[in-house]
Amino acid sequence: MDRDSLVAAVARQGATVRELKKNGGAAADITTAVVALNELKAQRQRDGRAGRPALEDLLLRKMFVVPSFEIYGGVGGFYDFGPPGAALKGNLLAAWRRHFLMEDDVLEIECTNIMPEVVLKTSGHVDRFTDLMAKCTKSGECYRADKLVEDFIENLLAKNASSLSSAEQEKHRLVATKAESLSPEEMHAVIQEYGILSPGHGAPLSFPMPFNLMFKCHIGPEGTHVGYLRPETAQGIFLNFRRLLEYNAGKIPFGCAQIGNAFRNEIAPRNGLVRVREFQQAEIEWFVHPDDKSHAKFGLVADQMLTLFPKELQLTTGKTVQMTVRDAVAQKIIANESLAYYLARTSTFVKSIGIDMDRVRFRQHLDTEMAHYACDCWDLEIQLSSGWVECAGHADRSCYDLQVHAAKSKVEMVGTLKYDAPRAKDIVDIKVNKGKVGKAFKADMAHINKGLAALAADDAAAMAVIEPSFGVGRLLTAVFEHTFYAREGDEKRGVMAFPAAIAPIKVAVLPLSTAKEFTPVMLSLERDLRARGIACKSDASSVAIGRKYARVDELGVPFGVTIDFETAGDQCVTVRERDSCAQLRVPLAKVVAVLDDLVAGRAAWTDLTKVFTVVEAKKDE
Amino acid sequence: MDRDSLVAAVARQGATVRELKKNGGAAADITTAVVALNELKAQRQRDGRAGRPALEDLLLRKMFVVPSFEIYGGVGGFYDFGPPGAALKGNLLAAWRRHFLMEDDVLEIECTNIMPEVVLKTSGHVDRFTDLMAKCTKSGECYRADKLVEDFIENLLAKNASSLSSAEQEKHRLVATKAESLSPEEMHAVIQEYGILSPGHGAPLSFPMPFNLMFKCHIGPEGTHVGYLRPETAQGIFLNFRRLLEYNAGKIPFGCAQIGNAFRNEIAPRNGLVRVREFQQAEIEWFVHPDDKSHAKFGLVADQMLTLFPKELQLTTGKTVQMTVRDAVAQKIIANESLAYYLARTSTFVKSIGIDMDRVRFRQHLDTEMAHYACDCWDLEIQLSSGWVECAGHADRSCYDLQVHAAKSKVEMVGTLKYDAPRAKDIVDIKVNKGKVGKAFKADMAHINKGLAALAADDAAAMAVIEPSFGVGRLLTAVFEHTFYAREGDEKRGVMAFPAAIAPIKVAVLPLSTAKEFTPVMLSLERDLRARGIACKSDASSVAIGRKYARVDELGVPFGVTIDFETAGDQCVTVRERDSCAQLRVPLAKVVAVLDDLVAGRAAWTDLTKVFTVVEAKKDE
Repeated sequence: MDRDSLVAAVARQGATVRELKKNGGAAADITTAVVALNELKAQRQRDGRAGRPALEDLLLRKMFVVPSFEIYGGVGGFYDFGPPGAALKGNLLAAWRRHFLMEDDVLEIECTNIMPEVVLKTSGHVDRFTDLMAKCTKSGECYRADKLVEDFIENLLAKNASSLSSAEQEKHRLVATKAESLSPEEMHAVIQEYGILSPGHGAPLSFPMPFNLMFKCHIGPEGTHVGYLRPETAQGIFLNFRRLLEYNAGKIPFGCAQIGNAFRNEIAPRNGLVRVREFQQAEIEWFVHPDDKSHAKFGLVADQMLTLFPKELQLTTGKTVQMTVRDAVAQKIIANESLAYYLARTSTFVKSIGIDMDRVRFRQHLDTEMAHYACDCWDLEIQLSSGWVECAGHADRSCYDLQVHAAKSKVEMVGTLKYDAPRAKDIVDIKVNKGKVGKAFKADMAHINKGLAALAADDAAAMAVIEPSFGVGRLLTAVFEHTFYAREGDEKRGVMAFPAAIAPIKVAVLPLSTAKEFTPVMLSLERDLRARGIACKSDASSVAIGRKYARVDELGVPFGVTIDFETAGDQCVTVRERDSCAQLRVPLAKVVAVLDDLVAGRAAWTDLTKVFTVVEAKKDE
Repeated sequence: MDRDSLVAAVARQGATVRELKKNGGAAADITTAVVALNELKAQRQRDGRAGRPALEDLLLRKMFVVPSFEIYGGVGGFYDFGPPGAALKGNLLAAWRRHFLMEDDVLEIECTNIMPEVVLKTSGHVDRFTDLMAKCTKSGECYRADKLVEDFIENLLAKNASSLSSAEQEKHRLVATKAESLSPEEMHAVIQEYGILSPGHGAPLSFPMPFNLMFKCHIGPEGTHVGYLRPETAQGIFLNFRRLLEYNAGKIPFGCAQIGNAFRNEIAPRNGLVRVREFQQAEIEWFVHPDDKSHAKFGLVADQMLTLFPKELQLTTGKTVQMTVRDAVAQKIIANESLAYYLARTSTFVKSIGIDMDRVRFRQHLDTEMAHYACDCWDLEIQLSSGWVECAGHADRSCYDLQVHAAKSKVEMVGTLKYDAPRAKDIVDIKVNKGKVGKAFKADMAHINKGLAALAADDAAAMAVIEPSFGVGRLLTAVFEHTFYAREGDEKRGVMAFPAAIAPIKVAVLPLSTAKEFTPVMLSLERDLRARGIACKSDASSVAIGRKYARVDELGVPFGVTIDFETAGDQCVTVRERDSCAQLRVPLAKVVAVLDDLVAGRAAWTDLTKVFTVVEAKKDE
């Protein structure tokens, strides 16, 4: 079965299972159906892995993504986006802005990549933004310790699948799951226990030491002012909180976003765009009062179904659960409405950019793996050929960031909540007789003052932050993997099934041959398409039309327009839809408007088949 | 006279001068007219300087541009873009893409900010991307030597305007002009000759030493692999040349662009966004055969007038010259069609974003100030309150970049030119008797082989590069200064007269009061505007409508829609145009379409006055 049919089969079988469960089918029938579904899913996953070399070849050959500094042999963890990759990324970000920012009136700012040490020292990154590194005692090569452990255990489980009891397997799996969050001592113990050696030389590994992932530089000519490349875009937003609140006329809750580069000096970059040293983030900081994390638009998403993988289930059954956003909040699985709102919005967004929702889940962080600033976190995970990959995080950063920056900079970062109705409140108003208190407590006076000040604290509170944070390169990888397929009957004809909204090129203009009479039609179509801002690409070469289609299929162009020898007579062209290969004969006078409607999603292909003549494609096309 | 009237007066007087010259007016009349024109221009320039504090206050208060890390006191040369600044920049770049890339089918890619040393060593930046730095011998403070010289001479000229002969003034001015390109020895001599001391302590300055402007970092955990933050986006394009040529099906000429950050560790950042340490560039590399720098679209721009400041005139009269693009190329003032094409396109572009063309000139680099990679360069200079500022460069980088990278990486970077007609050519085909030659020349054999290889070189040649390169922050500064004015009769009412295409917010929705009946109309307008992708902002606060207009004028919102107490009855709203304050009564059913047409430039305000009822503005509005 080819991958397309497999995807369809998974969808059909999934529907069967849901139907059976809904109608109270016999347990045995349900079990059989579920087993069949799981087998189909496993097959699709294997198929995805098998298709990966063909996809990687296409991505490189068509210049979607290429290794940076390739002519000098490249450097691990750095990639460039070629013309179609850069356009796809630009369109994806435009869609992101419309979906998350314009819809919810979220502000957007742009801060610098270089930040002085004080910012990242205060945020905790200088001290805690580290991975454990173990060195090969023979060669000095550096390894990321948690990845060594994960790889070792994965290997162990694969090799001893039959001999290990399921309890033993479970125990090993848990070690791998927790590897990222171990202390140096714990990590050392695990390495010793499993007898893990350096992969390069089979030599013992050094005691694992924390390695800071930030790139360091020096600002100014004196060389004394330390700076870092930002490890996340969020900090710039926190620093601007006070001005942003003022810009927003003091109203809370409100959000501010930033799209930009982040830099992490990974010990072991790998998996293409998945773990790189320079990448793009799209982050929103949604500022809410810590006592009220409700969301005004919660009702709009409450009925939406999400696939959740809460921490309890990760440590017990290992299975996800499907439930509505409303239930997840009601059952306190997701902590608050604002966090849940963004999980739902993210789910809608990734569906709109072509992600297969059967391979999407929201996984809650274990307490041990949480970043130093977060009190709850749900990752958007997408199943790729390399496994489940975090493509977005949704963290409740609580008041951490604004509090630490306020304390360090002595700049207040508070907001005031406007209650719908007046509330009565007891106010502690203390008049201290400093002389007497001082005499009585002497050296302890500082503590006393602090305690008294806390008692008198007013309603102004540091804002809590709900942070949806997207890794743009990872989302793109997911789009690549989930939209790529090989045309039936010809494995070498790869197709990128990008939704029109994010396709780098929307329309291909394809003269049937190099006949001179086609040129004016081609140029006029190009001009009219561009006037409407529709990205198009012409192919006036002498190759066969089937080959031209194959070329633009690889670029994921959703619609092709063929100019042929009948065009001069009937003043019509043929419009082809990428995935069905269906063709319509459309008058030249109407074709640009028709394409505009198709690309913008105002018209569906099936509607047009009722208006225009359907053309039978020839065999070689 | 307020600034608006001044701008108009300069335009009128300019027209008078041109008319006189064209019609062969009497020399005395022309001179009088020119003197009057120059006085008006000087007045406008003084006025621009006077308006600067008000503008700077507005930019900061409305969060167009704010100092980065402000709560920690900021760091010189780093700025953040707040919500309206980021939106303005995004719109300016979208306009840039449409104008330069879509129109001419130029490719666009995105490369990394961090680059390994080999790239920038080969490009010449490691050795030559330096400024001369002089240290205060007392405090150790670092100064940029050329700026010290320029400031000193500017001061000297200002103080001694009456006592110095014009020849003396000219001599000093030339020293300042050439300061940027002096060698350490020459710079030292100038500092000694003028007796320039450190501005901070009045102490002697150290011998000036080259200071490399690149930020250095280390890639990977070992700490041995040196990297730099790119000082320009161009290098990433050069490295990808071979793949780009292939993507373009081997056809030349072609162009590739990149928009992205560049980093320069300036010794003395200053003038807001004009000299910063982190900034955004928008660069095009137009690859042409070194023997044929003609441009297919040259005819479309040949009649366009440009204000040129060629190097000869800079060193003699100090005056610019106006001429057509065609004449400039014919007279070899601009070296080739491709370079001239881009000067013309840049001129059209800056006009479209609101730059006053009376304060624009293209200045050719002196031979001594040219960057190490360039053989000719024309800066787009815009007159700002701080003087003439380079906002874009147009360099003929010749074959320099591709040649050095090809030589170092051993990867060929050549293209082949397809002649329109076959050409006869003598081919040197050498069959060397290596034994005999070797015996005869022995140790000199290597030289002999090299010479023979050169004789036999084929038609494949390293491409030359024409590079239009824009400093985005500087363009924005120019837009700010050239569009800002104070509303007549009220100096405190600042207005940003952004063209609608780049305005961060296109429409303000303004209920006349907090009356509840206005809310549904406001929400429905917001929804319909957003559905068309039109950025809007509502102000439902209780302040007077005049104050609401003033607020959105400061944000440069071109159109306002007022919902008033008559709206419920006549189902109309009032649309206000920002600069004329003219108002029209437009039916609610039509207003979103009307605004869409206005914003997209499909409709002009004056046309609409014939369709809809003109409303008299009340005094306080």
